[in-house]
Amino acid sequence: MIFRRLAATASVSTSRFSLPPTIRQLLADPPKQSTTVSGWIKSIRKQKNVSFAVITDGSSAQGLQAVLVKGKDEELLRRLTNGAAVRLTGRLVSSPGAGQSHELLVDRNEGEIVLLGDCPPETYPIQKKDLTTEYLREHAHLRARTSRIAAMLRLRDVLRRQMDSWFETQGFCYSNTPIITGNDAEGAGEAFRLAQVETQHPAAATQCTPIPPSEFFSRPAFLTVSHQLHLEALATALSRVYTLSPCFRAEKSLTGKHLAEFWMLEAEWVLPNSHGVQGVCDLTEGLLKETASQVLETVDLETLWRDDDTTKRSLLLAAFRSGNLWARMTYTDAVRELEKVHASVPFQHPPKWGYPLQSEHERWLAESLVGGPVFVTDYPASQKPFYMRANIDERTVACFDLLVPHVGELVGGSVREERVDILQQKMGNTSGSEWYLDLRKYGGAPHAGFGMGFERLVSWVSGVENIRECIPMPRWAGRMLL
Amino acid sequence: MIFRRLAATASVSTSRFSLPPTIRQLLADPPKQSTTVSGWIKSIRKQKNVSFAVITDGSSAQGLQAVLVKGKDEELLRRLTNGAAVRLTGRLVSSPGAGQSHELLVDRNEGEIVLLGDCPPETYPIQKKDLTTEYLREHAHLRARTSRIAAMLRLRDVLRRQMDSWFETQGFCYSNTPIITGNDAEGAGEAFRLAQVETQHPAAATQCTPIPPSEFFSRPAFLTVSHQLHLEALATALSRVYTLSPCFRAEKSLTGKHLAEFWMLEAEWVLPNSHGVQGVCDLTEGLLKETASQVLETVDLETLWRDDDTTKRSLLLAAFRSGNLWARMTYTDAVRELEKVHASVPFQHPPKWGYPLQSEHERWLAESLVGGPVFVTDYPASQKPFYMRANIDERTVACFDLLVPHVGELVGGSVREERVDILQQKMGNTSGSEWYLDLRKYGGAPHAGFGMGFERLVSWVSGVENIRECIPMPRWAGRMLL
Repeated sequence: MIFRRLAATASVSTSRFSLPPTIRQLLADPPKQSTTVSGWIKSIRKQKNVSFAVITDGSSAQGLQAVLVKGKDEELLRRLTNGAAVRLTGRLVSSPGAGQSHELLVDRNEGEIVLLGDCPPETYPIQKKDLTTEYLREHAHLRARTSRIAAMLRLRDVLRRQMDSWFETQGFCYSNTPIITGNDAEGAGEAFRLAQVETQHPAAATQCTPIPPSEFFSRPAFLTVSHQLHLEALATALSRVYTLSPCFRAEKSLTGKHLAEFWMLEAEWVLPNSHGVQGVCDLTEGLLKETASQVLETVDLETLWRDDDTTKRSLLLAAFRSGNLWARMTYTDAVRELEKVHASVPFQHPPKWGYPLQSEHERWLAESLVGGPVFVTDYPASQKPFYMRANIDERTVACFDLLVPHVGELVGGSVREERVDILQQKMGNTSGSEWYLDLRKYGGAPHAGFGMGFERLVSWVSGVENIRECIPMPRWAGRMLL
Repeated sequence: MIFRRLAATASVSTSRFSLPPTIRQLLADPPKQSTTVSGWIKSIRKQKNVSFAVITDGSSAQGLQAVLVKGKDEELLRRLTNGAAVRLTGRLVSSPGAGQSHELLVDRNEGEIVLLGDCPPETYPIQKKDLTTEYLREHAHLRARTSRIAAMLRLRDVLRRQMDSWFETQGFCYSNTPIITGNDAEGAGEAFRLAQVETQHPAAATQCTPIPPSEFFSRPAFLTVSHQLHLEALATALSRVYTLSPCFRAEKSLTGKHLAEFWMLEAEWVLPNSHGVQGVCDLTEGLLKETASQVLETVDLETLWRDDDTTKRSLLLAAFRSGNLWARMTYTDAVRELEKVHASVPFQHPPKWGYPLQSEHERWLAESLVGGPVFVTDYPASQKPFYMRANIDERTVACFDLLVPHVGELVGGSVREERVDILQQKMGNTSGSEWYLDLRKYGGAPHAGFGMGFERLVSWVSGVENIRECIPMPRWAGRMLL
């Protein structure tokens, strides 16, 4: 070939590509030879002949202490300030300091300090002093540089990886169901709708008659509020499917438990037996326990857990380390308990069979009655959507909510109604939903599923109360930065 | 506690939860004892004393042959038709038949056949006969039941898992950047916009003055066309981040390479050295080669590859099995080659420096000139967005497009402009983008990134030409089923 092949100048061999190790990787397996680290200065202490800098690259809560043996470049040293980006070459040596096994010795001979990017201390918005949560929300583009937000981002990564491997073991197929859908969540008015688009022929616009905007998809389009219905279609072919995908609610809710855009873990699977909703709880509990118990061991949650959260933390650990199944009770029993305690500790909303459980009820059940996670099952049919399977009593459906301390509802799931006649009756108008009935008409196997708010899971495990701090760039009514 | 603890009736022990094995898992490790399988009848052949059914549960291309030794239930047997859902209990025995190691023997003694869901043959839309692609698109809710679409869904799952594990090895953190954004893709008019919402106070609507709809987020909101800018913010804290996330383009394009909603793998990372765009190509190639070469070995691509695609397939295998780096050439050299060949094999669009490469050019470069993947680097600055790093010649930028045979552009990436003065100058009006400049002002490290269309990757690896068949439920202009 006659064109210039640039490949020869490439920096990697043709065998395996590899980036240099991150600080986490370096500390896990300290190399003997000289090594290079890129990162940001977290703090620096300058002495006469030597400076001590803590460098972070975001790969672990633990930074790397670098010992910079002072050279002649005074100007360079002046510019090594908090937040500056540097690339350091040196040797990892055993550290005499507490709290670290190794430090990076950057000496005058082999060592090298490269300033990659200055960080003017007079204007840098992320100073070391305590910054309020609200201030950091206003600086969403920079807040990942704080230890807590960085720890949350790594926690999301680890939780997702653990769940992925659990689902793989159980034979589930990860699937991408649509975000844009014709389903408007049963007209509940909580779905975002896409605006109509201008005509695609700019030529036409030059004519005198203006062309009205139209639906891009030839019909109204919404952002999905749940992937369940689409996952059901895939589950009737692949048996076990799941997704971790964005969902949207145009709710004006401003609580710390709601976002306009959030990530939901949803699974649907063909039931392997006739254990009904109990089997669905079993799977949910298995997923959570096996995922979280590994996360508790591997991740530096110390950065996230606040010192005064000892009760919350011990409840969490107890839940995951317990050899017993988590508590389960029916909605009917739950309401009975709530009514009983309401006599002495009145709730704002009196509990009553047939009415929704309020947040205050849910939290009392998990925090006070059980003192841990509790599956509340078999809610009244009138409180739940059409697709949940009717129980024999005809008043309740085979569903559950998993309530956990300090978060409330973490997971909601159910057996899906597979009996086409009952489903049709519950749906009433089936126009536009024929496809959903088809899933039952043609080889419809009994199946079940659940949805888990991923930010709520992060909140539970980390103890970070407001889920706006459990997602990189939160969106809620009136607020969308970046 | 006084409420009824249902835990005792749960079907799992308190140790580890486990669903029964899928057919793929069963065949990988055939159990000695009796086993139960749920799935759908793919085909059935009924003889006098025995019936042979192929059962699939979607876990592998290979179904499981079940040998049903005929019992007395004639009615049940009659209802065992293609597409019916069944649960079979029997023993896995070595199979005398070709193409399968084991079969499931369901005999009259230990065996059991449970019909989970009928599938009326007279109306079932997914008959065994060859169904056209367009017919299956119209039946998006059922098409995952065909072997080809099911194989594509598993391929997506495997590709994603392999990529995840590659990124983990390289120290990347998986991140969820926002879908709803204030960024309208520089006003290119390709972003979907959210409709305004009605006021949240229904009470107000009863008054005489109608309240106009307003922006939910207090300003116009769009669906993201790329996660790059947000990932850059995270990369300046975590060093190495990536996402596999939905992206949206309100393009009226109706080609087989475009969707209105698609998934994009995007990565951003701090450059570990000064190799510039060559280092970015190195990482991209490493990812693709190590991911795909494993996928080629593990996945039954035989279902997807068409018999007459031998050329396409051998090009693909050659690319992944080659010990050499893939070809690389500058845009300038590419245009020179195109101009040369244009004299004898004219293109529809004459190639010319400073103009975009057209699809026909891209395909000629990959398919005819190189006969494999080719990185085209250093495009004219005027052809590329503001964020790509200016080269010394000031006419070109440090970017690449990876072109592959039969797909065209698979990946686009670049070194990002980290010099705040140059960036500011290229941006012109920086109002609303101050945050993006901040990433450079405060510890801005040289970094780079790329975006890869996930459906295009699926298309390349599988040989499935139209990307509408590379995603479960495709959306394009005028078409959104389900």
